[in-house]
Amino acid sequence: MKPDKQNKPDISNIISTMNYKETGKEMYRLIEELYPLCRSITGNGVRETLRILKNHIPLTVHEVPSGTQVFDWTVPKEWNIKDAYVRNSKGEKIIDFNKSNLHILNYSVPVKKKVSLQELKDHLFTLPDYPDWIPYRTSYYKENWGFCISHNQFVRLDDTEYEVFIDTSLENGHLTYGEYFIKGEEADEILVSCHICHPSLCNDNLSGIAITALLAKHLTRKPLRYSYRFLFIPGTIGSITWLCLNENKVVKIKHGLVAACLGDPGKFTYKKSRQGNAEIDRAVINVLRDTGHDYEIFDFTPYGYDERQYCSPGFNLPVGCLMRTPHGRYPEYHTLADNLDFVRPECLADSFSLYLSVMNVLENNRKYLNQNPKGEPQLGKRGLYESIGGHQDKKLRELSMLWVLNLSDGRNSLLDIAERSSLDFDLIKKAADTLSEHHLLKNFSV
Amino acid sequence: MKPDKQNKPDISNIISTMNYKETGKEMYRLIEELYPLCRSITGNGVRETLRILKNHIPLTVHEVPSGTQVFDWTVPKEWNIKDAYVRNSKGEKIIDFNKSNLHILNYSVPVKKKVSLQELKDHLFTLPDYPDWIPYRTSYYKENWGFCISHNQFVRLDDTEYEVFIDTSLENGHLTYGEYFIKGEEADEILVSCHICHPSLCNDNLSGIAITALLAKHLTRKPLRYSYRFLFIPGTIGSITWLCLNENKVVKIKHGLVAACLGDPGKFTYKKSRQGNAEIDRAVINVLRDTGHDYEIFDFTPYGYDERQYCSPGFNLPVGCLMRTPHGRYPEYHTLADNLDFVRPECLADSFSLYLSVMNVLENNRKYLNQNPKGEPQLGKRGLYESIGGHQDKKLRELSMLWVLNLSDGRNSLLDIAERSSLDFDLIKKAADTLSEHHLLKNFSV
Amino acid sequence: MKPDKQNKPDISNIISTMNYKETGKEMYRLIEELYPLCRSITGNGVRETLRILKNHIPLTVHEVPSGTQVFDWTVPKEWNIKDAYVRNSKGEKIIDFNKSNLHILNYSVPVKKKVSLQELKDHLFTLPDYPDWIPYRTSYYKENWGFCISHNQFVRLDDTEYEVFIDTSLENGHLTYGEYFIKGEEADEILVSCHICHPSLCNDNLSGIAITALLAKHLTRKPLRYSYRFLFIPGTIGSITWLCLNENKVVKIKHGLVAACLGDPGKFTYKKSRQGNAEIDRAVINVLRDTGHDYEIFDFTPYGYDERQYCSPGFNLPVGCLMRTPHGRYPEYHTLADNLDFVRPECLADSFSLYLSVMNVLENNRKYLNQNPKGEPQLGKRGLYESIGGHQDKKLRELSMLWVLNLSDGRNSLLDIAERSSLDFDLIKKAADTLSEHHLLKNFSV
Repeated sequence: MKPDKQNKPDISNIISTMNYKETGKEMYRLIEELYPLCRSITGNGVRETLRILKNHIPLTVHEVPSGTQVFDWTVPKEWNIKDAYVRNSKGEKIIDFNKSNLHILNYSVPVKKKVSLQELKDHLFTLPDYPDWIPYRTSYYKENWGFCISHNQFVRLDDTEYEVFIDTSLENGHLTYGEYFIKGEEADEILVSCHICHPSLCNDNLSGIAITALLAKHLTRKPLRYSYRFLFIPGTIGSITWLCLNENKVVKIKHGLVAACLGDPGKFTYKKSRQGNAEIDRAVINVLRDTGHDYEIFDFTPYGYDERQYCSPGFNLPVGCLMRTPHGRYPEYHTLADNLDFVRPECLADSFSLYLSVMNVLENNRKYLNQNPKGEPQLGKRGLYESIGGHQDKKLRELSMLWVLNLSDGRNSLLDIAERSSLDFDLIKKAADTLSEHHLLKNFSV
Repeated sequence: MKPDKQNKPDISNIISTMNYKETGKEMYRLIEELYPLCRSITGNGVRETLRILKNHIPLTVHEVPSGTQVFDWTVPKEWNIKDAYVRNSKGEKIIDFNKSNLHILNYSVPVKKKVSLQELKDHLFTLPDYPDWIPYRTSYYKENWGFCISHNQFVRLDDTEYEVFIDTSLENGHLTYGEYFIKGEEADEILVSCHICHPSLCNDNLSGIAITALLAKHLTRKPLRYSYRFLFIPGTIGSITWLCLNENKVVKIKHGLVAACLGDPGKFTYKKSRQGNAEIDRAVINVLRDTGHDYEIFDFTPYGYDERQYCSPGFNLPVGCLMRTPHGRYPEYHTLADNLDFVRPECLADSFSLYLSVMNVLENNRKYLNQNPKGEPQLGKRGLYESIGGHQDKKLRELSMLWVLNLSDGRNSLLDIAERSSLDFDLIKKAADTLSEHHLLKNFSV
Repeated sequence: MKPDKQNKPDISNIISTMNYKETGKEMYRLIEELYPLCRSITGNGVRETLRILKNHIPLTVHEVPSGTQVFDWTVPKEWNIKDAYVRNSKGEKIIDFNKSNLHILNYSVPVKKKVSLQELKDHLFTLPDYPDWIPYRTSYYKENWGFCISHNQFVRLDDTEYEVFIDTSLENGHLTYGEYFIKGEEADEILVSCHICHPSLCNDNLSGIAITALLAKHLTRKPLRYSYRFLFIPGTIGSITWLCLNENKVVKIKHGLVAACLGDPGKFTYKKSRQGNAEIDRAVINVLRDTGHDYEIFDFTPYGYDERQYCSPGFNLPVGCLMRTPHGRYPEYHTLADNLDFVRPECLADSFSLYLSVMNVLENNRKYLNQNPKGEPQLGKRGLYESIGGHQDKKLRELSMLWVLNLSDGRNSLLDIAERSSLDFDLIKKAADTLSEHHLLKNFSV
């Protein structure tokens, strides 16, 4: 029992003292700063992204050489882009990479040639259902070139000759990712992972990057029970690379969240880990329940973000994905419309707060032993039926103490008690603190 | 196998031969007799209550000295009251304990002094929401004095001087409780516990006392499988005292019910034991289901009557609370309106019958072994497809025999079979009896 | 791993190549052929039925002597009928067995005598609720005689003398049943059982006989994983006899279905085995779910067809009953109205197809091991993201591969995966085949 630390829930202090408005703006400004970069699964866009994040947290940048075998995969060649455009026969740049990173098919090979409209069309991608929007497309593992444009532009293209110029390089280099580790009181870790491979797309993936970076920043130099690992990695190949190069660390991951799609105004959505009833799953659901707002819970599916890799059967880590509107459920997803107008500072702040609340539950979710298990202890003689607050508060405080006493038989954690009593975790935690102060309860290690 | 005893379900005989109207009246008359007494958690009101109950059952009265340490609690000083009133400046008794036991704040210390209206008001308790009713209030563990009056009277009090006179004693004495034990065939016990600490309040607690007393009376000198223990105790401190002084007996308690709020016309309510799926929980729910009437089931909470103590984690006994409308869910609760008009003989009789039915299930809930487990035995050649009753009866009788045969594999009790088949427990029990008589089934001890 | 066999799901080939219209007609013609016979639990009606079935499958006919003790039962005397009628005083045959097999109370003893209307009426059975219909009645185990007629005829009977003539024999003979066994790759068996004791009744029991016979016929000489046992037996006494004489084979039965009521146009109904969550139960429910049509699932009850015997506690076999409208739920049940108009070729074909689909699930329900369990394998480099079909097909194919990979940890069978993913079993099976071909998955024996 470490009463000092356990009774000072530093994450709940962060929650209660934080300036949410300012934090929301800080995340939004970070998104604004990262928005113009042309990220991909490798290359200088990722490097520049990590460099900017270093202004907030002293993360470590790892460089993994192309060709490195990582499980069933191979780290691909590094892709970089300088310029790309299509000129019409009048010499006008009708598609210009400098106007939007999304115009280029991500991982396009270098091209410089004249093509007919017909040939050009084979390399153009549009969204007929949203004719104003430019889609986001990639071709990481199959060499190809292409441009993404609005369908409105596509249908108006003249039947003439076009000059295609793509100044990219696809060469042996590195896969780059960022990692930041905070050592806590325990070696067991909480993982927060976000993907950093999307170019100018705000909700997917800049909102996840901003939340992850700010969480890391705010948890730094705080007394923490768990150690925390923050990963900024390219999707799929990044998590596979990290898992392969860090297999020995995987066993330490006790809880994890993949952070994505956290800046839109939609309700919260949680996709459970493959385990389905892991402590992280129950903690998130408990926190969502306590918000009083609508939310949605999905069972695990093997389709999604990097939880696919963390939850592969060889690892089966307790990692869920906590989002607002999930990928593919909002039309702006993977289009130019997922821009700076689509994400909002107050939604980011709200998501940030939710992540902290989940961590607060995990940090404080311990088991206690009722020291007077036979009958109720006499709370009255200890002044524990006295209350400063109003009647309703008092009744809830009393009830939470009775619940904690009744269920603290060594089998139930505070989260178990919060679930069974339907009382807020914070109330249960406060009751446990009060009872511990009066020596009616004793924390015990499992 | 004791075919004689098991095939003569004496409790079901009580149920089928009882004059419910007369039993309801008998309980109501007992309530009328007990109503005028000023009970508390200690004192002569409790002694007089137990003396009257002795007219029905030869219970043992226990006296536990003040100051006795019982787990985390101490048996308090004994409280007795002779008189109490408030006179106005004209010498009129405007509040008079002799008119209602509820007028006095239970456990008030002795007072004899003149007070201003302002000071008096600090010691008056009313119910603004029900301005005609006198509330019931106590101050057991914090020395205080006070009176309970109607809010209508309160707002009309003149701003004058008042004479307060409270002739009580709060001195070392005893905590008194009653206990009645019936020895059954088995040492395992069924506990029925009621609280006897409330003054003139009929549903809470006189209905519980009447039901418990009459159950004890009717089960006396009957052949019973279980032993039965009936406790008449002051709430909280009484059950804690009993548990502390009888720790060695606790292990014998296999099933238990706290009896309270059983005389009002509301539907039945069952609050499950902390175990949640104990045999008592399943038996009560099964009986309630078979009544065909509406009812409500609550999960255990650590707030309520003495089940709080029986279900404390150090004991975790299978004790539920079987009520009609629960405490706090009817406005008359803990007010003068919980009087002789609020409880009804027919509701008491109905509650009594339900308790007996639950005991009937527990007494008869055994496991049997199908003696012809391969294929069905040929019921027809034994005349078991012949029926005296009508067609529907016959089909149900056949079906109940088929269910009992099919599930009597050593794992299922009759209650398990009643639950899975959705057939009445009585029908299942009769089928088991019939099949046992034809040697197709054999009772076996677990 | 036997890739050849497991990747050629022969039952699914039968399903996909079968001419359902023709098969439906074939079953209907078999029903027409069997309809005129007067079957009972013993006798020449059963022998003739089995003789006709031999035109389709080389089943073995077993003859068990009357008097043979089978568990709690005794094989009864053999019953045969030549003629039966009732003549009125004018010598007119007013009831004539030759007009309908249902006219005779099945198992009637021989009678030749004159009776009054009053005495006659004691031996007449009618259906007042359906006054046009002749009921079907039996008296196997209690010697009696009687006739079944329409209620309309019953109420118009003249008060005169009647000549009753029943030319039956009830003598020591045999109980006859048919059995057909197909040896598969494994010794473990799938049982299909139908009853053959009902006279001219089409849905109950000729539809079950036709389905069972055609299943046997189509599975003959196919490469099969499981062995298959088809039983054509009189109800109750037949299954009890078979179980008693074949106790050593019972342990081989891994899955079983009782086939009955399969020709009417009602929705499918499945009554679960006593185990309730056996593989057969889950396979049937999965197939019903995948049909997209309405269906109904019932929990096991010990009342019904021969599943009562297979699921008796001494055997507790995983045998369910897969029907369309269940016995007793359609008014035509056990009346003359359950005739050739009531069953339809297309409904029979549909039922046949459903049975095959269930067997297809059972045959292919294996567990596999993901050979790259850490992270996802790279499907793209193997061309597994390429698709010939449309976009939706492609997404489903990809998703099914991801599910199979994610859950193939040695604990989940393909049926488990189909259930958890809510994807069609066939899709999951195809994904497993494709992944096995690419060595990403390996079948393993449990």
